[in-house]
Amino acid sequence: MAEFRHGTPDQADFLAELLAHGLLIDSGVPGVYGRGEDFERVRAAFDALVTRMAAVDEPERMAFPPLLPRHQLEQIGYLKSFPHLAGSIFAFEGDEEQAAVQEERASRHEDWSEFQEMTDLVLTPAACYPVYPAVAARGALRAGGITVDAGGSYVFRHEPSGDPARLQMFHQREIVRIGEPDTVAAWRDAWRDRSVELLRAAGLDARFDVASDPFFGRSGRLLARSQRAQALKFEVLVQIAGPEPTAVASFNYHQDHFSSTYGIAMENGGGPAHTACLGFGLERITLALLRTHGLDVQAWPHAVRERLALA
Amino acid sequence: MAEFRHGTPDQADFLAELLAHGLLIDSGVPGVYGRGEDFERVRAAFDALVTRMAAVDEPERMAFPPLLPRHQLEQIGYLKSFPHLAGSIFAFEGDEEQAAVQEERASRHEDWSEFQEMTDLVLTPAACYPVYPAVAARGALRAGGITVDAGGSYVFRHEPSGDPARLQMFHQREIVRIGEPDTVAAWRDAWRDRSVELLRAAGLDARFDVASDPFFGRSGRLLARSQRAQALKFEVLVQIAGPEPTAVASFNYHQDHFSSTYGIAMENGGGPAHTACLGFGLERITLALLRTHGLDVQAWPHAVRERLALA
Repeated sequence: MAEFRHGTPDQADFLAELLAHGLLIDSGVPGVYGRGEDFERVRAAFDALVTRMAAVDEPERMAFPPLLPRHQLEQIGYLKSFPHLAGSIFAFEGDEEQAAVQEERASRHEDWSEFQEMTDLVLTPAACYPVYPAVAARGALRAGGITVDAGGSYVFRHEPSGDPARLQMFHQREIVRIGEPDTVAAWRDAWRDRSVELLRAAGLDARFDVASDPFFGRSGRLLARSQRAQALKFEVLVQIAGPEPTAVASFNYHQDHFSSTYGIAMENGGGPAHTACLGFGLERITLALLRTHGLDVQAWPHAVRERLALA
Repeated sequence: MAEFRHGTPDQADFLAELLAHGLLIDSGVPGVYGRGEDFERVRAAFDALVTRMAAVDEPERMAFPPLLPRHQLEQIGYLKSFPHLAGSIFAFEGDEEQAAVQEERASRHEDWSEFQEMTDLVLTPAACYPVYPAVAARGALRAGGITVDAGGSYVFRHEPSGDPARLQMFHQREIVRIGEPDTVAAWRDAWRDRSVELLRAAGLDARFDVASDPFFGRSGRLLARSQRAQALKFEVLVQIAGPEPTAVASFNYHQDHFSSTYGIAMENGGGPAHTACLGFGLERITLALLRTHGLDVQAWPHAVRERLALA
């Protein structure tokens, strides 16, 4: 089992309140919760707000299940950077006798892992990953490229924690921009301001910062420094629970990492495309709103409810 | 790898058309597809129609991620009945050296399974499973019990197939009824008619039948016979592609299976509760609508678009 990160007392209290109010529903595994009606109403409302804000880009909408071909995870090198966060899908391939032994062990909550074999699927670690091969399969991009609204996809991170804002499975509300380097950079800059405004308009004390990914191991520290130095990752931070603000949105500029992997180019010799993505953590934003405005959604400030079309 | 079931020529043609029209998006793994904008509009429209139809039951809404605690799968005996369909989550627990070897193998698409260990999570195989412990945790039920609308949850079935209606990951639009045996039976009977009407009103040639689950192995055949004899499972069938109609909705009457497992009882010595669930296969219904009314959603009959509030 991955090391369990205890929440701070503040985080543990907040989690207990969320469970007591039926906003989250305990599953017995840290970081995996059901969600009650009010939580879902807020999450859906913010989701819809992003959809309205993104309409100006005239995105193409695509949706993907939370499973990714294992081959794709291998191809993009995810296991180099984040082996500790990945989840792979195993399944049973045996006969009736083996099934009987597996069931017997499972019924006693003993180890039945030897009967499980790796499948060709993994859990999706980032909502933008399936978008790149889907766009690549269509051939070269016209001038201006493409914007894809991938909606609110489930993603997995194997990091059990007592902090309710650190879930193992959560919705990334993802928008992806693919096009000429200048086009992509301009899109990212526009959304950098737009996303902070959007969160502030919902009454959150949001601020913007350069960031780095939680790369694995010693070599990961180098990768993180380089990512920061090149300002390839930005985050929008909001105070939820705990000693530090939590990232509720992040921008990643991949330069030609995905476009070269999948062969996405601009038409008429326009060169390789660049890619960038923007993901809002829908559960984190819902938690931030509940923390800021209170656990009774009906009692939130009128302006906030109106802004989220909850009124 | 689980045995790949080839689609019939009719199913293969339908899949090819869906991909060509951008309604589905190929991932490289059979039974795992992205979904295009029109597909999602129809899926969301039918989802909303079920929500409106279910409002009469005044359900409590809950939502669950596509992961279930492994302990729960073990406890309810899923691996006895369906070991071939289950998916378990494995993850990396090693050090930097092991991570390096794992990555090297993965980058060559070689076997890296030895570095993956079983976690305490599995993929959710049925959308109703997380509902029972959530309800049990609240204590005994008042007279009349409870109806839970669990929305459209992703569920996993490890059965790669060339039939586009047989997905490995799909949305079950799930409603669960928990209460006195008579209450639950009456609810099921009401929905049996309501669900056929609902599908017929959307222009589908739906019919109702007694059914059984795809239990594993020789002993599974006995289980299936017993399930049929007791009429514990019903399905609503629609012709999509292939030689036989496809189940697009199913009703399962569990009697006291889940209530005894989790200890769900009626208040004031009202005895054990019974449970039943109803699940609509949202992707299958979307496919049935596309097959019946054509791949151009804008050209569907006005009455159907109006019924689905697509107009």
